[in-house]
Amino acid sequence: MYFASDNWAGAHPAIARSLTEAADGYAKAYGTSDLDKKVEHTFNEIFEREVAVFFVGTGTAANSLALASYNRPGGQVFCHAEAHVNVDECNAPEFFATGSKLVPIEGARGKMPAEALAAAIGRFSPDNVHGGQPVGVTVTQATEAGTVYELDEIAAIADVAHEKKLPLHMDGARFANALVTLGATPAEMTWKRGVDILSFGGTKNGCWCAEALVLFDPARAREMHYLRKRSAQLFSKSRFIAAQFDAYFRDGLWLELARHANAMAAALAAGLTQARSARLAWPTGSNEVFAILRNTTLKALRDKGAALYDWPAPAEIKATMAEDETMVRLVTSFATRPEDVERFLSLCD
Amino acid sequence: MYFASDNWAGAHPAIARSLTEAADGYAKAYGTSDLDKKVEHTFNEIFEREVAVFFVGTGTAANSLALASYNRPGGQVFCHAEAHVNVDECNAPEFFATGSKLVPIEGARGKMPAEALAAAIGRFSPDNVHGGQPVGVTVTQATEAGTVYELDEIAAIADVAHEKKLPLHMDGARFANALVTLGATPAEMTWKRGVDILSFGGTKNGCWCAEALVLFDPARAREMHYLRKRSAQLFSKSRFIAAQFDAYFRDGLWLELARHANAMAAALAAGLTQARSARLAWPTGSNEVFAILRNTTLKALRDKGAALYDWPAPAEIKATMAEDETMVRLVTSFATRPEDVERFLSLCD
Amino acid sequence: MYFASDNWAGAHPAIARSLTEAADGYAKAYGTSDLDKKVEHTFNEIFEREVAVFFVGTGTAANSLALASYNRPGGQVFCHAEAHVNVDECNAPEFFATGSKLVPIEGARGKMPAEALAAAIGRFSPDNVHGGQPVGVTVTQATEAGTVYELDEIAAIADVAHEKKLPLHMDGARFANALVTLGATPAEMTWKRGVDILSFGGTKNGCWCAEALVLFDPARAREMHYLRKRSAQLFSKSRFIAAQFDAYFRDGLWLELARHANAMAAALAAGLTQARSARLAWPTGSNEVFAILRNTTLKALRDKGAALYDWPAPAEIKATMAEDETMVRLVTSFATRPEDVERFLSLCD
Amino acid sequence: MYFASDNWAGAHPAIARSLTEAADGYAKAYGTSDLDKKVEHTFNEIFEREVAVFFVGTGTAANSLALASYNRPGGQVFCHAEAHVNVDECNAPEFFATGSKLVPIEGARGKMPAEALAAAIGRFSPDNVHGGQPVGVTVTQATEAGTVYELDEIAAIADVAHEKKLPLHMDGARFANALVTLGATPAEMTWKRGVDILSFGGTKNGCWCAEALVLFDPARAREMHYLRKRSAQLFSKSRFIAAQFDAYFRDGLWLELARHANAMAAALAAGLTQARSARLAWPTGSNEVFAILRNTTLKALRDKGAALYDWPAPAEIKATMAEDETMVRLVTSFATRPEDVERFLSLCD
Repeated sequence: MYFASDNWAGAHPAIARSLTEAADGYAKAYGTSDLDKKVEHTFNEIFEREVAVFFVGTGTAANSLALASYNRPGGQVFCHAEAHVNVDECNAPEFFATGSKLVPIEGARGKMPAEALAAAIGRFSPDNVHGGQPVGVTVTQATEAGTVYELDEIAAIADVAHEKKLPLHMDGARFANALVTLGATPAEMTWKRGVDILSFGGTKNGCWCAEALVLFDPARAREMHYLRKRSAQLFSKSRFIAAQFDAYFRDGLWLELARHANAMAAALAAGLTQARSARLAWPTGSNEVFAILRNTTLKALRDKGAALYDWPAPAEIKATMAEDETMVRLVTSFATRPEDVERFLSLCD
Repeated sequence: MYFASDNWAGAHPAIARSLTEAADGYAKAYGTSDLDKKVEHTFNEIFEREVAVFFVGTGTAANSLALASYNRPGGQVFCHAEAHVNVDECNAPEFFATGSKLVPIEGARGKMPAEALAAAIGRFSPDNVHGGQPVGVTVTQATEAGTVYELDEIAAIADVAHEKKLPLHMDGARFANALVTLGATPAEMTWKRGVDILSFGGTKNGCWCAEALVLFDPARAREMHYLRKRSAQLFSKSRFIAAQFDAYFRDGLWLELARHANAMAAALAAGLTQARSARLAWPTGSNEVFAILRNTTLKALRDKGAALYDWPAPAEIKATMAEDETMVRLVTSFATRPEDVERFLSLCD
Repeated sequence: MYFASDNWAGAHPAIARSLTEAADGYAKAYGTSDLDKKVEHTFNEIFEREVAVFFVGTGTAANSLALASYNRPGGQVFCHAEAHVNVDECNAPEFFATGSKLVPIEGARGKMPAEALAAAIGRFSPDNVHGGQPVGVTVTQATEAGTVYELDEIAAIADVAHEKKLPLHMDGARFANALVTLGATPAEMTWKRGVDILSFGGTKNGCWCAEALVLFDPARAREMHYLRKRSAQLFSKSRFIAAQFDAYFRDGLWLELARHANAMAAALAAGLTQARSARLAWPTGSNEVFAILRNTTLKALRDKGAALYDWPAPAEIKATMAEDETMVRLVTSFATRPEDVERFLSLCD
Repeated sequence: MYFASDNWAGAHPAIARSLTEAADGYAKAYGTSDLDKKVEHTFNEIFEREVAVFFVGTGTAANSLALASYNRPGGQVFCHAEAHVNVDECNAPEFFATGSKLVPIEGARGKMPAEALAAAIGRFSPDNVHGGQPVGVTVTQATEAGTVYELDEIAAIADVAHEKKLPLHMDGARFANALVTLGATPAEMTWKRGVDILSFGGTKNGCWCAEALVLFDPARAREMHYLRKRSAQLFSKSRFIAAQFDAYFRDGLWLELARHANAMAAALAAGLTQARSARLAWPTGSNEVFAILRNTTLKALRDKGAALYDWPAPAEIKATMAEDETMVRLVTSFATRPEDVERFLSLCD
C-alpha cells in the first residue's frame, strides 16, 4: 500500500526495455544522436507545432531553467503560494535566476485565481525601481493539491500575464495526469491557451529520469543551450533520456499510465467518500487524493504497512476537522495495484 | 571505428540489467532507499574509510558542486589551463560558486606542476583584498591529455595546497582508467595522498548516467545536501543511479572495463608508433591517445568511417609538425572492439 | 513643506564642513587611513565593545551584505512582510546571497511578533532538504511603519532566533531615531538584546552618504572584507565616509539631529490628532507619521506645495476609512523646519 | 612625496565647495533631482550625443555593471591579462554577471593587441556549447601600465569586437588623463571609435566619490535601472555625486586637473631619465610612471618619506634588471605638488 509519492515507484518495464535496447552501439553525445533527434521530433508531433526541446535531469532543473531564461534584474515571478517552485525546490529557481523573487499568491485547492494574479502584478509599477519588475508567471498542472486547471482557467491566467507582456510557464511534473483528466490534447492544454514554456515531466509517470523543457518559442533555444550547460544539465549520454521518452510516447503508453494512476486515485477517493472514518478534503482531479482520516484509522493503516504522508491542512479545512483527525495525501502511480487500493479501503471502516 | 569519445558508447549490459531489475517495486525517494544506502556503503569499502557520497547527474555538476562547497567571496581556484572545469563546462563552476575565478596554470601534457602551483598561489596575499583569496586546487585524474599523475605528484600538489590551507579536489571523470594504470587502490590515489573531495565518474566507463561526489570529510555532508538540491541535482528516483553503481562495482566490473579501455588505447598507441604516417604526441597513460597523423591518412580513415576529433596542438608539439599533419585525439572505452583497433591501424600505413 | 522622505534633505552643515576639512592632504586608501581607523574606534566606544565596522555606500548594500554573510545554500531569511529588504531593494538581498529567500511574516504596525516568527521557523525541518534551511532573521528599527520595537521585543525575537541558532540582523536605516525614542544606549538596543549584525545608517539623519555595517562578532570580519569588495562596496577614498561619521558622532550631533526629527514628527502627529480633516493611522514612534487625510485637505496641501506620499493602507486601517480619505506618510528629518510643520497643520482644518 | 596612488589624494576644493553648496535644501531622491538631471545633460554635451548616465559609487561597480549588462549564460569577456577587472576587483565582475569568465589576453605595456583579441575570440565556436560564448570586450584607457591606446588602436579593437557582434566596454578610471594625452574629444575617444559602454571615473581625478556608467545605446537604460538598484548602487541622495560632477565639469576643471597630473608625471619621467640610479621601464603616457630604481636609492627615498609601490616586473623588463634594482610605480594626481616632484628627483642621483 504505497501511496507516499509517485516517485516511490521504479520504471515501467517498457521504459527499462528501451534503455536496454539503446545500451548497445555508439551514438553522438550531448543530445545530438539520432535517437535524441527522433524524440525531439516526436515532441513536435505531440504538440502539433515546432517546439524546442531540452532534456534535463530533474523537474526542479526544468522549472528553474524555464524561469531563469526569462529573468531580468529584480525579477518577480508570480506563483501559487504552495507551488513546488516556491516551497519544495530549496531556492533552486532563485539561484538559477541569480536572485529572482517568487511572489506567492493564495488560492483555494492549489489554484491561482486570475484576478488575484492581476492584483498582485498590479502592485508593481515601472516607475518604482525599488520594487523590482515582474518577469513571469508560473502555474502547476496538475496542481500540488491534486486539482486540475480547466482550459479556460489557463487561458484566463495567460491573458493576465500577456497583457503585462509576461510569459506563462507551466510546471507539468504531472502533465499527463492532468491531460487525461481534461481529455484535452497537449496543444490545447499549453500553447493554444497561452503557455509559453513547459516543464514536461516523465519521471513521476513511469520513467526513471526523463524531464524535458519545451519552448513554444523556438527562437529562444539558442540561449537555452548555454543556460542548460552552464547549469550542469547537459547529459553526455543524453540518449538515456531520449530512450525513455521514446518508449514513453510509443503507442500512447504515457496516457495509458496516467489513466491508470488517475483511475486508482478515483477508486481511492470513491472508497474514502463511503467510509465513516474518512472523507475527502476536496474532490480529486488527478492522481493525488487529499483526505481527512480519523487518527485511529490512520494508525491502523500504517500498522498494516500503508505508506502515506501527513499533510498540513489549509485553514478552511482545519476548521472542519476534529481533534482526532489528520489530513493526509495519497498519491497513486502507473504502478499502483488495484488490490492495494482495495486493501487500503477495507481498513477504513 | 568509434574513437571520438568514451561518451559515445551506451551502457554495459550489466548496468542495463541492474536498472531493469531495480525498476520493479517501491522504494523511498531522494536518495534514501535501501539500494542507495547499500551503494553508499560500497563506497566506504572501496575507499577504506567513511566517506559521504552524493549522486549527481553529470561530471560538470560534480565538479561544480565540489568547488562551490569550498568557495568564499573572491575565491580563486587553481587548475591546469586545459582542465575540463576551465574550458569545457561553460562557466558552470563559476556559476555554482556564484562568481569564483579559475586561475589557469600551464603544464606539459595536462599536468599541473606543484612548483607552478606554489608560485601561482604565492602571488595572492591576505593583505590584498582586491586580488581575491585562494580557496581551492583541482586536478584531473586521468588528465585531459590522457596522462596520469603519479601518486607522489598528487601528494606534492596536496602538500602545496594544504600548506596554504586549501582543499584539493580531484576531477575523476576517468578515475578508473587512471587507477588501473597506476595499479593503486582508490584510497591510495585519493585521501591517502591528500585529496579532500572527489568527482567520481561512472558514465564514461560503462554507465548511462552515474556520477558521485565523494567527500572525505563527512562533516561537510550537511551543507552539501542543500547545495545539491539548490543546484537541481537531487534525483527523486535516485536509485536509478544507485542501481548503476551497484552493478558497476560488483565483482570488480568497473576495473575490468577500465582495463579493457586502457588496453585498447595501448594497442592503438603501439600500432601508431609502428606506422610511418603517424606518431604519438606523447606517451599514452590511460584511455586517450594523442597522435599526429598525416592528413592523407586521416582523410582515408574518416572516409572509411573512423570517428575521431582533431585536437589543437600545444606549441611544443606544433613545432615538430609538418604542414600536412594534424594532431588528433583517440578515445577508447569499455565498448571498443579489438577488431576496430586493428582495422584503424591497418589503414595507417 | 517637504515630508516626502528623509532622504530629500541634503547634508547637515557640520557634515559638509568635515568633508571640506578632510579634502586636503593625502591618506591611505581603501579604509586604512588614520581617519578611518579613528572612526572605527568611535564605533567601539559608542557600542561599548569591540565591533568590526565596514563602511558601505547604501543601506541596501549594508542589509544585503549582512544577510549574505550568513547565507547558506537554500537559505531562508525571516522578515516582516513590509520590510525594506523584502519590498524596496529590488532583490538585492537575494542577489548578494545568490538566491536566498525572504520569508515574509505579517504583523501589525510594521512589527514582527516573536510568536509568529517562531511559528514560521517551525515550519522548516532539517529532515526536509526541499524546503531549504533557515539562516537568519532581520528586523527594522525604527520600522517601516514609523514604530519602534521595545527593548524586550527585540530580546524576544533574538531569543527565538538564537534558539534555532539563527543570527539576528537589524536594519538600522533610522537607528538614531529609534534610539532617542527609547532613550536607550546603542549597546542596549543591539547586542545586549541579541542583535548579531547591524546596518547602521547615517544618510537619512544628516549625512550625504554614510552607512556602516557593524559586526558584533569581529571574528567574522575577515570574510566580510572580501564580501564587501566582491560586491563593489569598498571605496578608494573611504575617508569621505569616515569624515561624515566623524562629524556625525562629534558632541552627540547624531542624537541631536534625530531628536529634532522626532520632535517635528511628534508635532505633526499632535496637530493631526487635533484636526477634523485628519487623524493618525497609528501612534508615531519615530520620524514617520502615518495619517489619514480627507482628500480635499490633501489636495489643498499639495496645491500649496506640500510633498508627501500616498501610502497603501493595511486592511484593518482601510476598513476604517471613508471613500473620500487617503492614507499618507509624512517623514521629518534633521532639516525639517518648525514653520513648515506649522504651515502644514494650519492647512488641515 | 606621495606617489603611491591617485586615490591617496582627497578632493579638489571646488568639488568640496560644490558639495557644501548642494547640502542645503530639499531635492528628489534616487537620481531624479534637478541637479542630477542637469549633470546628465552635461554628459550629453560632453559626449556630443544623447547618452544614458548612471551614477555609481565605485569604479569596480561601474565596470561590473557594464559587463553584467551584456552578459549571457556561459559568457566570456576578453580583457588584457593585467586589466583591473581581472586582477584587482575580487571577482566583482564575475559576481555581478553571475558566473562569467574573463579571458586574459597578453600584450606589452598594458595594451591588448587587436590581433591577439581576434585570435582569442576565434577559439570559441557557436558549435561548442561547452566552451561558452563570447559576450564582450573590455579595454582600460589609460591602461594599468600608464600607457594610452591611440584612437586607431581603439577602433581596431572595436572592429574585431563588432565583427563578432560583441560590445566594447572601456574602463575609464583614468579617462581624463588619457584624453588630455591624446588631445582628443570624449566623443572621439569613445563612441566615434566604437566604444559601446564606458566607466567614466571622477574619483581618481579630484572627486571624493563620483563614478558614472555611460551607455552610448540609451535603449539599454531601462534594464540598467534595475541592474543598478539590484546591485545596491542606487544612492538615495544621488545629488551628492551630481554635485561633484557639476563642479568637475565646470569651466573644464576636469581637464585642467588631468593636465596637471600628467605634467607632474612627465616631469618625474624626464627627471628619472636623467638620473644614474633610475630609468623608465617604458615611456609614460598619462599620470603613472613605471621606473626601475637602484635599491639603495629606493631605500633612501622611502627613508625620506616617499610613498610609492613596488611593482612586479614583466618578464621582458625583468630580463634587463640588475639584482640590486626594483621596479616601482609612481602615480601623480591633481594634488601633486611640483616641489615634491623636485625633491623626489633630487634624491635620485
